[in-house]
Amino acid sequence: MELSKEPYKGTRDFYPEDMYLQKYIFDTMRRVVETYGYIEYGASILEETALYKAKSGEEIVNEQTYSFTDRGGRDVTIRPEMTPTVARMVARKRQELAFPLRWYSIPNLFRYERPQRGRLREHWQLNVDVFGIANIEADAEIIFVSYQLMKAFGAKEESFIIRINNRKLINFLLSDLLKLKPDEVYKLSKIIDRKDKLEASEFQAQVATMLADRTEAFIKLLNTKDLTELASLIPSNNGVKELLELSELLKARQIPNVVFDLSLMRGFDYYTGTVFEVFDTSALNNRSLFGGGRYDDLVGLFGEEKVGGVGFGMGDVTIKDFMETYGLIPKYKTTTQVYICPINAEYFQKADELAQSLRENGINVVVDYTERKLASQIKTADKQGLAYIICVGDEEVETGKYKLKNLHTHEQVEVLETELLATIKSS
Amino acid sequence: MELSKEPYKGTRDFYPEDMYLQKYIFDTMRRVVETYGYIEYGASILEETALYKAKSGEEIVNEQTYSFTDRGGRDVTIRPEMTPTVARMVARKRQELAFPLRWYSIPNLFRYERPQRGRLREHWQLNVDVFGIANIEADAEIIFVSYQLMKAFGAKEESFIIRINNRKLINFLLSDLLKLKPDEVYKLSKIIDRKDKLEASEFQAQVATMLADRTEAFIKLLNTKDLTELASLIPSNNGVKELLELSELLKARQIPNVVFDLSLMRGFDYYTGTVFEVFDTSALNNRSLFGGGRYDDLVGLFGEEKVGGVGFGMGDVTIKDFMETYGLIPKYKTTTQVYICPINAEYFQKADELAQSLRENGINVVVDYTERKLASQIKTADKQGLAYIICVGDEEVETGKYKLKNLHTHEQVEVLETELLATIKSS
Repeated sequence: MELSKEPYKGTRDFYPEDMYLQKYIFDTMRRVVETYGYIEYGASILEETALYKAKSGEEIVNEQTYSFTDRGGRDVTIRPEMTPTVARMVARKRQELAFPLRWYSIPNLFRYERPQRGRLREHWQLNVDVFGIANIEADAEIIFVSYQLMKAFGAKEESFIIRINNRKLINFLLSDLLKLKPDEVYKLSKIIDRKDKLEASEFQAQVATMLADRTEAFIKLLNTKDLTELASLIPSNNGVKELLELSELLKARQIPNVVFDLSLMRGFDYYTGTVFEVFDTSALNNRSLFGGGRYDDLVGLFGEEKVGGVGFGMGDVTIKDFMETYGLIPKYKTTTQVYICPINAEYFQKADELAQSLRENGINVVVDYTERKLASQIKTADKQGLAYIICVGDEEVETGKYKLKNLHTHEQVEVLETELLATIKSS
Repeated sequence: MELSKEPYKGTRDFYPEDMYLQKYIFDTMRRVVETYGYIEYGASILEETALYKAKSGEEIVNEQTYSFTDRGGRDVTIRPEMTPTVARMVARKRQELAFPLRWYSIPNLFRYERPQRGRLREHWQLNVDVFGIANIEADAEIIFVSYQLMKAFGAKEESFIIRINNRKLINFLLSDLLKLKPDEVYKLSKIIDRKDKLEASEFQAQVATMLADRTEAFIKLLNTKDLTELASLIPSNNGVKELLELSELLKARQIPNVVFDLSLMRGFDYYTGTVFEVFDTSALNNRSLFGGGRYDDLVGLFGEEKVGGVGFGMGDVTIKDFMETYGLIPKYKTTTQVYICPINAEYFQKADELAQSLRENGINVVVDYTERKLASQIKTADKQGLAYIICVGDEEVETGKYKLKNLHTHEQVEVLETELLATIKSS
């Protein structure tokens, strides 16, 4: 049987053009978050399975992970998310690290699921977290960084909104106001979490199975957009207080597209305060792009003193889909500038000398050693997207003059060997 | 039970300082290979297991891989090496790609083995390959790039040698001269491959189990360092011819530390021509650093027309060990330049304004929102390795003058708000 040439289901090959785009995405991510003082960290893609059993959502551990037993009998999992790893790392050096920490990473993550638009089995995800700031300023900064990321990818403010909510408020409504038991709170939260994916009537029906005649009033409450009104109803709730403070801070930072959304859940288990989500408003790509929130007790799971954290994760597949929707994908550009074409093997050494003197001055240069006709060599350079070609033969070596041809502009200049570098650098 | 804070056995956490070194290693790799026109590609860490059964060494597939069955019944493997993947990718777009290709990647790889110095379960490996050049120029370029990499990491020429050999020569000696059968060729090759790890007497004993009274003559032959002498004995052998040509080309490129070594095997299954290895000559780290060679029929395994390749793989752990041995590890430097310390929460907004105006001009800035005493804030900045601190309080806001303190040099200057940017940029 012939070997398959396809990558494993739900994963991607990155040919140079794909890699260019991936690097553009990663470089943009790095540039923005480093501006705010976030420092890169990393870890292995394999972790012991126990790490994910402690605090992930149930669905994630049971059905969606790549878990197996290694040859030494250890249960291991290919990471489905980065937060448990970063919490482990913070706990591991709890005593040595200087807080507050601003950390980021761009790990690849695996989930076992049916591949579909925006959902692959493997994707990369920018993870940005701040640890050790108790007050709401950290939440505001994290949301501001999310906003700046969208702008850096070329998004206009009208193409996305930032929804905010707070777990302390949701918990108050479900536990204290509706008097639901913990398992009911969990179940209703999951229903609310799917609100955007359901028809309004279907959503109402699902809520009704739990709330009966209180359904209509509850859905009306969920649709409240007015924070101040809510604050006047339940003035002592910390969730509402934090939301009001957060709104003020985001206003001070001049973000115009923040909306309060009481139905925003962002999964369930981690978060303890602020939750937020960046949402694409276009009809073509109407969906959640990414989000995050505050989790106050992840580091405590490792037996260390608690360290509060706020963070988010932004996936490469979703942001790429967004960029496609809005025509924001940059054009491929190769990292190689010059392609040298010797007319035959006799001129390899001269070609190497030319190449090496350009390389020593920071120019990336290829020499074609295939002994093909010039036309074929030039065709290769052109197909690979190179800008410059230089041919090397009798005439050039005799006169010391080289034709520098730009394949993009089709311009050609004849210059002395000693002027090649300056000519390439100045154009 | 408390959750473990350690990474999975044989893998590493990359705290900011570790990540800085890893990025330095990767950046150096990228810079050097891109100079020679190599373009980056990438792929998933998961592949179907069948890919590795086709052409890897037996040992690798059977005992050292992380293989398991996914939830859909597919046999998958976490890649132990990159070459099968790149051969698959080249085969997949055989008709569209413009050859010759110069490609590189820096994938992480997994092998199940007992962790020891220089050998972890997970490591990263620069893979550099050229496809579609039949002549020996490609082999010379690949070895030259290896040499340039060593130089870029700060290695002196006396700290390493480059050993070269050729499979066509070895095959001729074992099959045609010694008249060994294929399974005996395989077995003796494996013994020769371990030569450096065995005592001379133990090596002789193992060879003797196969060659009996021909052992001494064979070991003498293996120790031949003189290519010209060998060429006069077997002038028609292509392996010797290629080695002579290769030596000439490397001499033309002025690499002083190349030696011919007939005992150099570099594993067994892939290679069909040139093999080479970069070897550390120090007494402290006397070992193979990395290597590669020519493989002429990997793409053919996928039912596509053959494309010859030459390449090598350079691991991050071995190069890091080398750098440590020779004191070549760079000092950690954070990506953040300025730490702003507000004296209390009242000055957060002014601190944010200052920070944002610096950020918009390319300076990476943190604002401390912890409401701690100034001394504690400054201690954090210092521990995190930042250069500059700026305090914000009554006096500064009133006068519009800020003290810019450099924590590295302990110098302090007082400048107007409008001059902060220029002062930081100029220093």
